[in-house]
Amino acid sequence: MPSVHVELADRSYSISIGTKTLPHMVETLKGHINSWTHTVLICDERIFETLGIQVRDSLQSDGMRISCLIVPSGEENKSAASLTKLWSEMLAERTDRKSVVVALGGGVVGDLAGFAAATFMRGLRFVQVPTTLLAMVDSSVGGKTGINLPEAKNMIGAFWQPHAVWIDSQCLQSLPDREYRSGLAEVVKYGVILDESFFKYLETNASSILARESNAIESIVRRSCELKAQVVAADERETSGLRAILNYGHTFGHAIEATTEYGQYLHGEAISLGMTMAGHLAVKLGMWTEESLLRQRNLLRAFRLPVQRQPAQAAELMEAMQLDKKTEHGKLNFVLPTKIGHVKTVAGCSPTDVAQSIEAVSNA
Amino acid sequence: MPSVHVELADRSYSISIGTKTLPHMVETLKGHINSWTHTVLICDERIFETLGIQVRDSLQSDGMRISCLIVPSGEENKSAASLTKLWSEMLAERTDRKSVVVALGGGVVGDLAGFAAATFMRGLRFVQVPTTLLAMVDSSVGGKTGINLPEAKNMIGAFWQPHAVWIDSQCLQSLPDREYRSGLAEVVKYGVILDESFFKYLETNASSILARESNAIESIVRRSCELKAQVVAADERETSGLRAILNYGHTFGHAIEATTEYGQYLHGEAISLGMTMAGHLAVKLGMWTEESLLRQRNLLRAFRLPVQRQPAQAAELMEAMQLDKKTEHGKLNFVLPTKIGHVKTVAGCSPTDVAQSIEAVSNA
Repeated sequence: MPSVHVELADRSYSISIGTKTLPHMVETLKGHINSWTHTVLICDERIFETLGIQVRDSLQSDGMRISCLIVPSGEENKSAASLTKLWSEMLAERTDRKSVVVALGGGVVGDLAGFAAATFMRGLRFVQVPTTLLAMVDSSVGGKTGINLPEAKNMIGAFWQPHAVWIDSQCLQSLPDREYRSGLAEVVKYGVILDESFFKYLETNASSILARESNAIESIVRRSCELKAQVVAADERETSGLRAILNYGHTFGHAIEATTEYGQYLHGEAISLGMTMAGHLAVKLGMWTEESLLRQRNLLRAFRLPVQRQPAQAAELMEAMQLDKKTEHGKLNFVLPTKIGHVKTVAGCSPTDVAQSIEAVSNA
Repeated sequence: MPSVHVELADRSYSISIGTKTLPHMVETLKGHINSWTHTVLICDERIFETLGIQVRDSLQSDGMRISCLIVPSGEENKSAASLTKLWSEMLAERTDRKSVVVALGGGVVGDLAGFAAATFMRGLRFVQVPTTLLAMVDSSVGGKTGINLPEAKNMIGAFWQPHAVWIDSQCLQSLPDREYRSGLAEVVKYGVILDESFFKYLETNASSILARESNAIESIVRRSCELKAQVVAADERETSGLRAILNYGHTFGHAIEATTEYGQYLHGEAISLGMTMAGHLAVKLGMWTEESLLRQRNLLRAFRLPVQRQPAQAAELMEAMQLDKKTEHGKLNFVLPTKIGHVKTVAGCSPTDVAQSIEAVSNA
């Protein structure tokens, strides 16, 4: 099965990518994970009813002891309360240092279960099995795990690399349309920040991607994972600044999510608007061409992602950006494109330019 | 100032050991810790009133922004609830990736504050400033941080190395006598497991150690830290088995603590009994001489640590040891001495031998 290698010295691992591969996961991974005799399978109720039962059965047919822990779905449950409950349940299930945590679900479950794995007995092995496009191309790769505080998202967590990531594109067939398209925003992001030929591939194959043809899905997931793996290998803990390029569109995007109380836009939709704002800012600063901005806009529109919002609310977004954990001493820093396939970090952007870029993405 | 180096590649750090050095901590450490402009000082109420104010004043005179977070004292507060509260307080104090957490106190504060540092924004720099002998020679060195679950101690946590450990022996002058002597049990342990000449030093200098003479304290703290640093450098995450030798006396000791509900014995007192039981077991297995056991016993008694208990309760201890997180599939494994200064791990000890070793430490 094709796989992507994430090179991180003694924390290296593989991302397996295929279609209808879920039933073969355990037999394949057991070759790489020693003394695996107990699994803590963590997923939400809906995923358990569909995919969770499949995974449980394949684990059981292997003779393995398995504990299924169901967590409530939704971002609001990526919380200290859910984490504390998981810890107690893991203890009650006699989880020990040889147990393997399997996180089956989207980003919320992956982040929460990964953080539980990182902290139970000071760290258990875990496997990410992402079931949404967003989790496949973004949150399941790179070792960021964690929870939210009531006042701020992703404020608590650990860098804790999985022992394997298992991606079965078949999981996406039942994903709601809007959630699938939301994941495509991060896919477009990889093209803009790192790979023009991948961007062209997306332009050319937009319809088969939207139709969720399995080879199209496998291609975009594989290339996205390869690109993310390269960045993570070069800057695992976000210390050199390189990993920050993955935040293209995210400073604007997080502010959009925060000011709409995470209710109006899905994450990828907010990132689509954020990349459009960042693109305008880059054009305004003379770094990027109008033509490139148009290509980005057209590709996002082809994936039916938002590129305009009404009203613009520049002042409110500006204020939210000041609270972003990446903002240092009030200076506005942005990852901005210089051409399709290349970005750089620009420090200390003028508030006027930033506000005008927000307003440019308004159809008022 | 004399210091001990802990070699852990990019996680290496120094342990500074001196007397009346607390006022110079910040100016010295600032040379090693870049961009340190905000401190989160974590301690309990009693320590804040005595040493915390000193540290705060020296930080403030340096012009640094400082947030003092007071945690309740006592093992029962090394909990998920205390951790969650610390996270929120750190956020309210605008703690960011450039902040440094300073843990000032004994093992409870060090473990809790260290785990908060490990998990806030996926990891902040922190400094351990141990104020008890036990914390100086054991918990502040080696990167084990964490909290208890209601059902089990130290079940949740992370390996997170401090950026520095700062030891001022003067802090021990106000420590209650029983707590000071409790810390000496771990000091004796280092002699038995790793260094016969250190053991002899302890035998020869028992009275100046008990009198808390500052050069005696500095000597025993320095040698204990050197020995622990060597073990930690060789097996940071307890994967090779080497670090397990630090558990000499602890399988028995933890069972004694658990069966007396952590109320009757201080940790070091339970370890003193545990080492005596382990010593008896080693003699019974023909690994150790009666004479060595007597030397260990006499040294522990010189430090007025318990070497007999009444009644023996072997059955209850045996049951508690089965629940220890180091027990695998019910097999009783012990770290046992072969001579003073050397131990090995013995797997699958017979329950009869173990029970008899417990009974040998009874004065009934």
